[in-house]
Amino acid sequence: MSELDGDYERAGFRGTLRWGERPAVIVVDVCRAYLDPSSVLYAGVEDAVESAARLVDAARDSGAPVIFTRVEFAPGGTDGGLFFQKVPALASFVRGNPLADFVERPRPTPDEVVVTKQYASAFFGTSLASTLRTLGVDTAVICGLSTSGCVRATALDALQHGFVPVVVADACGDRHPDPHHANLFDLQSKYAEVVSESVAVEHLRR
Amino acid sequence: MSELDGDYERAGFRGTLRWGERPAVIVVDVCRAYLDPSSVLYAGVEDAVESAARLVDAARDSGAPVIFTRVEFAPGGTDGGLFFQKVPALASFVRGNPLADFVERPRPTPDEVVVTKQYASAFFGTSLASTLRTLGVDTAVICGLSTSGCVRATALDALQHGFVPVVVADACGDRHPDPHHANLFDLQSKYAEVVSESVAVEHLRR
Amino acid sequence: MSELDGDYERAGFRGTLRWGERPAVIVVDVCRAYLDPSSVLYAGVEDAVESAARLVDAARDSGAPVIFTRVEFAPGGTDGGLFFQKVPALASFVRGNPLADFVERPRPTPDEVVVTKQYASAFFGTSLASTLRTLGVDTAVICGLSTSGCVRATALDALQHGFVPVVVADACGDRHPDPHHANLFDLQSKYAEVVSESVAVEHLRR
Amino acid sequence: MSELDGDYERAGFRGTLRWGERPAVIVVDVCRAYLDPSSVLYAGVEDAVESAARLVDAARDSGAPVIFTRVEFAPGGTDGGLFFQKVPALASFVRGNPLADFVERPRPTPDEVVVTKQYASAFFGTSLASTLRTLGVDTAVICGLSTSGCVRATALDALQHGFVPVVVADACGDRHPDPHHANLFDLQSKYAEVVSESVAVEHLRR
Repeated sequence: MSELDGDYERAGFRGTLRWGERPAVIVVDVCRAYLDPSSVLYAGVEDAVESAARLVDAARDSGAPVIFTRVEFAPGGTDGGLFFQKVPALASFVRGNPLADFVERPRPTPDEVVVTKQYASAFFGTSLASTLRTLGVDTAVICGLSTSGCVRATALDALQHGFVPVVVADACGDRHPDPHHANLFDLQSKYAEVVSESVAVEHLRR
Repeated sequence: MSELDGDYERAGFRGTLRWGERPAVIVVDVCRAYLDPSSVLYAGVEDAVESAARLVDAARDSGAPVIFTRVEFAPGGTDGGLFFQKVPALASFVRGNPLADFVERPRPTPDEVVVTKQYASAFFGTSLASTLRTLGVDTAVICGLSTSGCVRATALDALQHGFVPVVVADACGDRHPDPHHANLFDLQSKYAEVVSESVAVEHLRR
Repeated sequence: MSELDGDYERAGFRGTLRWGERPAVIVVDVCRAYLDPSSVLYAGVEDAVESAARLVDAARDSGAPVIFTRVEFAPGGTDGGLFFQKVPALASFVRGNPLADFVERPRPTPDEVVVTKQYASAFFGTSLASTLRTLGVDTAVICGLSTSGCVRATALDALQHGFVPVVVADACGDRHPDPHHANLFDLQSKYAEVVSESVAVEHLRR
Repeated sequence: MSELDGDYERAGFRGTLRWGERPAVIVVDVCRAYLDPSSVLYAGVEDAVESAARLVDAARDSGAPVIFTRVEFAPGGTDGGLFFQKVPALASFVRGNPLADFVERPRPTPDEVVVTKQYASAFFGTSLASTLRTLGVDTAVICGLSTSGCVRATALDALQHGFVPVVVADACGDRHPDPHHANLFDLQSKYAEVVSESVAVEHLRR
């Protein structure tokens, strides 16, 4: 454990949340914008996306629900509000732009729920929390892009809404390692359980 | 600008949000738990709290609303849900614990709204967004504790709810400088305008 | 079944929601303002309140959680927003007014969660949904005051948040029978299961 | 004024909310399902829909934003949760069903925001409140279908979120006059200003 980890633990952070009995995998914003080298948002996150695809495979094998999120804005970004103004790159997600499309792997099946969102958190301005409750889900296994943005925002809101957030470190990517690691530190300290792909897969297969 | 800042800017982050016409100052969780040296949560954030007090003075002088948040849980933390389980230190905020009390400065006047919350974001599980809307507020000037926790969560939700988040760096504190700076970087990159106390005070006094 | 019931049923309303495995009783706004004959809000709902008290007894006997809601506004009603402006009678609920106090029966024990709210729905601007989720609750058994106001708003939001709303007709009151019955009709048609006290008590005691 | 109106007024309900400076028209769920005589949900609301179309014309003439809502569920209604279970008729809104399509008049232009929802309130599980705030809207002029369902739920949430709800009685329809009138009574008593088409149009044209 690092010195900073120890300081937080002594201060009463870094408690442990246990997996519930009914996990679902939430795949956050894995789309061409981050994986197409010609995109301004290209982030070099191929390894994380492959890990996310294996996580999705494990969930499907085990019968756990898989839910994908995607971003879509109206022309001009009116429904993107201040977020659309703060991050000009979000223009890649205006309706009809192929950069917003899913990639080959992971990719939702016709039966899986796709949550369309306009903000960072997959819970904000969507009916995701209600869907999870109706499905009896108690644990949100979170992967996708990017760690310091939509993944963290989604994990925070999962906790706030009452779903145990499990963030799969290997299956989350960011355009730079510093924000990736800094956000995993905050998540483990205050909001979520940060685990490796192998630990998550083992839990899903139980 | 650092190399990382430049990389984010080229990728289409770090846009600029302009102050609206009606700011309010939101003072997040400034209470004895972080300032009493005998508290497990003591964070050594006296300078930030003094800066927050000056920011509140400027808001009051200018007629801008000031809203304080505080944390309070029912006995046993039932209404704190998973957050209470993840962060054992939150036991300091069970109803009746004096560590949850406001400090001398800044401190709400009898007429100022106090938002009682159970989660990290001042908007989650509270009527803050509705109050700001009814007051005609369009800009949330945010200060308090801690940068990597409730301040960031509040700034993110301010943006998501449609209020321009202005985070006053000098008036926000954290128990360690690394998470403080890492979170200010994320906030400026994606969600908020991070400014100094002097810039914020100048805007409020306009 | 009435003619109107039949018309709705043929149109595809009036489906049936089944009780889940973990109910909680939500007691909405049972306070002196509606029961003190000198209060402008006095509603003549003594019978409904006695029914609510028996429902609470049954829940406690069975180990089901009981959650009470109460209304409280800051001085001047700033945090009551437009609702406080639309309903002048809400001035009875400004902090410190004894009309906002609980009555003798039903009344929360020190261990039961009390949700303080500013709006009609017990879910709006509160952390109630998160508390229910963390407690594993799947069914919200709703009673209190008034049927056409906070009871209906709470039942609608229970459904929207993913908790089966069971509205106990005998234990809900209104100042006039017409809105009481009209709202129970809407609730049964679209959002909730409307049941008698005896049916609810029988379910709780299973 | 009716006897019931008088009783409510003496009890401190029926205050008046004033129009703000920036209204938007919200057109709730006007789609083929309610207007195609072969649909199980056919409601005989042609007059209300014509009134809504004239209201939309007035808004466009005046430069006020117009926002349309529509309902869409994933196959099987998974994202419709308990609402989809309670109201079997909602199967008409599963993705791809032409009954969910807009009608000729009113109908969104390519530039107008369309909010896709799964629940009764246009604010629940959507980013509508954030969009209205970003547009500077303070008044929600509401029309559409049906009065006792999505219109009332939307008006209640508009009030709760801090937007003055103006419900245009002529431009709202229901399958039966009793719930239509009972809900307009509740709305005027507690949550909204209920006005005629001519009053609304006059305000929009100011």
